[in-house]
Amino acid sequence: MDELVRFGVSIEKGLLAKFDALIRRRNYTNRSEAFRDLIREELVKKAWDEGESVVGAVTIVYDHHRRELLNKITDVQHDFQGTIIAAQHIHLDHNNCLEIIAVRGKPADVQRLADTLRAIRGVKHGTLSMTGAGKDVE
Amino acid sequence: MDELVRFGVSIEKGLLAKFDALIRRRNYTNRSEAFRDLIREELVKKAWDEGESVVGAVTIVYDHHRRELLNKITDVQHDFQGTIIAAQHIHLDHNNCLEIIAVRGKPADVQRLADTLRAIRGVKHGTLSMTGAGKDVE
Amino acid sequence: MDELVRFGVSIEKGLLAKFDALIRRRNYTNRSEAFRDLIREELVKKAWDEGESVVGAVTIVYDHHRRELLNKITDVQHDFQGTIIAAQHIHLDHNNCLEIIAVRGKPADVQRLADTLRAIRGVKHGTLSMTGAGKDVE
Amino acid sequence: MDELVRFGVSIEKGLLAKFDALIRRRNYTNRSEAFRDLIREELVKKAWDEGESVVGAVTIVYDHHRRELLNKITDVQHDFQGTIIAAQHIHLDHNNCLEIIAVRGKPADVQRLADTLRAIRGVKHGTLSMTGAGKDVE
Repeated sequence: MDELVRFGVSIEKGLLAKFDALIRRRNYTNRSEAFRDLIREELVKKAWDEGESVVGAVTIVYDHHRRELLNKITDVQHDFQGTIIAAQHIHLDHNNCLEIIAVRGKPADVQRLADTLRAIRGVKHGTLSMTGAGKDVE
Repeated sequence: MDELVRFGVSIEKGLLAKFDALIRRRNYTNRSEAFRDLIREELVKKAWDEGESVVGAVTIVYDHHRRELLNKITDVQHDFQGTIIAAQHIHLDHNNCLEIIAVRGKPADVQRLADTLRAIRGVKHGTLSMTGAGKDVE
Repeated sequence: MDELVRFGVSIEKGLLAKFDALIRRRNYTNRSEAFRDLIREELVKKAWDEGESVVGAVTIVYDHHRRELLNKITDVQHDFQGTIIAAQHIHLDHNNCLEIIAVRGKPADVQRLADTLRAIRGVKHGTLSMTGAGKDVE
Repeated sequence: MDELVRFGVSIEKGLLAKFDALIRRRNYTNRSEAFRDLIREELVKKAWDEGESVVGAVTIVYDHHRRELLNKITDVQHDFQGTIIAAQHIHLDHNNCLEIIAVRGKPADVQRLADTLRAIRGVKHGTLSMTGAGKDVE
């Protein structure tokens, strides 16, 4: 764990009161932790904008009854094996599966994986969520 | 202007170095101002999520050659006159106009105005941008 | 699988050419599948905006060396066991873990789970991604 | 206005019913117009992602009582005069002004303008909204 640096911050009284109320509702126990999370969120946006390595999740929902769909989804995942860390499969209901794929790589590659999976007929939804920077995670 | 409160914040050394680099690139001259802006951004998201009053801009692009389009856009704006503060009109090119409408009101009303304008045939794009809380702006 | 309905759509020639180029790059093999995905994406946004049941993923990155962190994360997950379907744990590097939690429930509950996990000291990042409507998935 | 092309689309019955309900609520009178808007929205995202020219609005809220603030805001706008089309100024309340700046240019330049304005002390909020592609608007 990295050494902590302590420094002073000045905020208008009214603004600070609203911030304190907000972070209390979000279950933070102190301001420093809330500030750290706001900072990290900005760094993830920057990593994503600038094409640095990121980690995240690709989620898809699909109807497993559709012929050949499972094979296609598996084929695509193998084409992107450098990007995929692992996958988790959940049976949502009689027809629908939720598959969550943990990914690490350049934003463009991760995006291309998500696009390719979503374009498969029978895949109903697809999202890409960027959780963090892929390296030098602080 | 509200009284400033000064307090201490603890951040890991490596994380703070990255934050300092990030805000320098965004032209901030000190950390407090950057923190204030991060806080205000969270408060705007909260106002929007919870249906509090917000201010913002609705922008649309449309082809002014299309018959009756200007009348329809004006009619809609009059239906929402309680929500609209003012509008600005820009000639983008020979065919296309950009109209930016300053709005204040409940998120649901502002969203409905944006949806209604965008649904008009000939209106090519429409966005809604929430700038700030509509009252008690800190 | 649901019966297909076929109907006509009119689009300006230039706009359609750009759409065809865009979906080709995203690996779609036909327009109908691309339209279906655009529609489903709108329905997910609607479900989320209106508090209907959704499915998705909460992802967090944390330093597993921090004392008591694993216990706290597990405690929170048990408090939300009605919302959580399953969780997947990935070792990102020597210090950092990526945990991806499959969730189903009201947007407010899912958001509260994500907020609570992110507020724990040592949890570095957290995102919430809404993949689909939680029921009547089309 | 561009020539219309008509073609067939196949959508599952249940999904189409939900789409029809959604667009009716958004005040669309026909599906083609709704599809055109979905397509244009994707093209704007693409233009933004790939650094093509865009048009949009930068909105800021600031306290006009703060000394030198108006001069600084004006100075920045002059530095970016190639990017700014026009600006509109609204008096929100006794202290606060809303300024909406119509912009056209590369996403990176427009983003830098928004960042620079937001970083000025006294500027409380700032958003950037990308309305459309800056040229070849369909």
